[in-house]
Amino acid sequence: MSNPSLLILPGDGIGPEVMAEVTKIIDWYGTKGGLKFDVSTDLVGGCAYDKHGVPLADETMAKAQEVDAVLLGAVGGPKYDNLDFSVKPERGLLRLRKEMDLYANLRPAQCFDALADFSSLKKDVVAGLDIMIVRELTSGVYFGEPRGIFEEGNERVGINTQRYTESEIDRVARSAFELARKRNNKVCSMEKANVMESGILWREVVQKVHDEDYPDVELTHMYADAGAMQLTRWPKQFDVIVTDNLFGDLLSDLAAMLTGSLGMLPSASLGAPMANGRPKALYEPVHGSAPDIAGQGKANPIACILSFAMALRYSFDQGAEADRLEKAVEKVLADGLRTADLLGEEGVQPVSTSEMGDAIVAAL
Amino acid sequence: MSNPSLLILPGDGIGPEVMAEVTKIIDWYGTKGGLKFDVSTDLVGGCAYDKHGVPLADETMAKAQEVDAVLLGAVGGPKYDNLDFSVKPERGLLRLRKEMDLYANLRPAQCFDALADFSSLKKDVVAGLDIMIVRELTSGVYFGEPRGIFEEGNERVGINTQRYTESEIDRVARSAFELARKRNNKVCSMEKANVMESGILWREVVQKVHDEDYPDVELTHMYADAGAMQLTRWPKQFDVIVTDNLFGDLLSDLAAMLTGSLGMLPSASLGAPMANGRPKALYEPVHGSAPDIAGQGKANPIACILSFAMALRYSFDQGAEADRLEKAVEKVLADGLRTADLLGEEGVQPVSTSEMGDAIVAAL
Ligand SMILES: CC(C)[C@H](C(=O)O)[C@@H](O)C(=O)O
Ligand SMILES: CC(C)[C@H](C(=O)O)[C@@H](O)C(=O)O
Repeated sequence: MSNPSLLILPGDGIGPEVMAEVTKIIDWYGTKGGLKFDVSTDLVGGCAYDKHGVPLADETMAKAQEVDAVLLGAVGGPKYDNLDFSVKPERGLLRLRKEMDLYANLRPAQCFDALADFSSLKKDVVAGLDIMIVRELTSGVYFGEPRGIFEEGNERVGINTQRYTESEIDRVARSAFELARKRNNKVCSMEKANVMESGILWREVVQKVHDEDYPDVELTHMYADAGAMQLTRWPKQFDVIVTDNLFGDLLSDLAAMLTGSLGMLPSASLGAPMANGRPKALYEPVHGSAPDIAGQGKANPIACILSFAMALRYSFDQGAEADRLEKAVEKVLADGLRTADLLGEEGVQPVSTSEMGDAIVAAL
Repeated sequence: MSNPSLLILPGDGIGPEVMAEVTKIIDWYGTKGGLKFDVSTDLVGGCAYDKHGVPLADETMAKAQEVDAVLLGAVGGPKYDNLDFSVKPERGLLRLRKEMDLYANLRPAQCFDALADFSSLKKDVVAGLDIMIVRELTSGVYFGEPRGIFEEGNERVGINTQRYTESEIDRVARSAFELARKRNNKVCSMEKANVMESGILWREVVQKVHDEDYPDVELTHMYADAGAMQLTRWPKQFDVIVTDNLFGDLLSDLAAMLTGSLGMLPSASLGAPMANGRPKALYEPVHGSAPDIAGQGKANPIACILSFAMALRYSFDQGAEADRLEKAVEKVLADGLRTADLLGEEGVQPVSTSEMGDAIVAAL
């Protein structure tokens, strides 16, 4: 049997730096950890635009469809701010999500004990926090038609369409219920059913999936504005949150920020199973390309490394190895190693991006 | 000249209780404060549905169009959860906003010194916080067509339409810049221009209004997801935030929750000037109808009372009286009076809804 295949797309800004550290981890697994991967690398985002005039070349898209998992760094930067909408770095990422049909975006918001002080929230509110946001990623207002800027009378009008079919809601709800069963068995679904018909359908379908196939999971519904409030007030009330693409964008970033350490948070975007049984999958850190600190050894590679841990768990059925990698990360933090984003406490040891990567490899 | 007119719509849940306290304030102004109002009262929300079969009767709508300002308590309750979308309590509120064309929703998020400990955020993050969210209130995905649940092939699809014209963006941007000039002269505009064309138009128009007529105000743009993060991380970086109807719904609730005391936060919804020069206006607390505590004297009337203070300021040009009322509220808090939502500290004096109202009247 051939090795599982990985496509690495480092992207822009700090993407290449943090991905270099993931590569060390992958190498460790290949030489010492007994897990060999076939790795290829390509361009996405601004750097792809620079070379090909588009933020994702067709050949790269084709490769992404063939591999077992894609690892992405980050895209975007001020250099590309004035590009036309159709070729902005983000479009490369959105094309991957859409064409690979990665409908379930898993965003854990976990507060690491060693880092609880970094949160802007009180320690008792966030210490031990461990929630999972499941964001629908391939539909809704991100992709709905009609969309664009049109002439209307004497002025222009900007239009986007929020749009969800029953089957789109059904499948992401199932992802959420499945995850909840492996966690604390609770799902909270968020929408604005009080003002949006798409939210009414969302609520109805999630409830139906629950009643028919997951009656053992505790299900609640909340309006998304109340959800934003409750996440701020007492986030530990949640286990799994399932919500649409746009609400999920805001709510998952809010949840990430609760933990105070964005540089720590991974994500997985999963689609339907391929012929080999593995889901289509893309893994990426929650943080962005942070162009202001790129190339200075200041970036925290942990979010990207933990994204690879999610790949071990969700793509390669290597839960024990994922645990091992997560433990290695916890160990270096407990040892006091901190990249630039996590400085400020007494008695910690500042390290560069690559020193952090080396330490995690050593801890493995 | 006749007295200025007020239409009071107490609504459901705790609405009538908190509004009863506002009525005491209005009475005080009529008898001792030298400001007489012509007050009428009517139904909105679930109670209107119970009586008329609709959450806002046409006669009530007509009255609202005629008065100088509307004061609203809150709408909704579990009793109405299964009503058809078209007659849900919220539709009454949305009809008022839309038909009065109240396009600028002003939501101050202010942290009261005496209450900073109630926040789930660290004290230094929120103490002294004073930001103003200006939310567009009459357009966007709340009202855009097409909308509904439709058959498509073998399944249903839920559709809503995000839609903004240049003039809709222009007028709410002006409201934000005007407010900023009276505050700290900073506006941050939030959208998702990286994924939505309506956001591109939003950003462009806000920038144009700025460059042409408000170059003295500092303007920045932020993606709404980053906005949610930054509000959580360090809210004091903001002065005025301007955003659309849906983002404004989530972000203003998030901002409100940062302060930790939802029972304290008022809002104003303003439209175009009427023949008498006053803007069309509706004032309401940010909190909801809280059916679980209704009728128990536990509700905090301050948000509703401060909404009346906003009416004094924005509808009746009585800035000094608004200040006086706000000072009276601060005084009773400094004296240690607390409704049920604000208990928990040592040495405070628990009071009921009506005792709180009485104390504020006494402080006037
Ligand atoms: C970069 C951008 C297109 C993207 C999104 O809005 O989905 C990002 O914010 C995210 O959440 O992954
Ligand atoms: C009650 C509801 C319709 C309303 C809204 O979504 O606008 C509320 O959440 C608000 O923010 O005033």
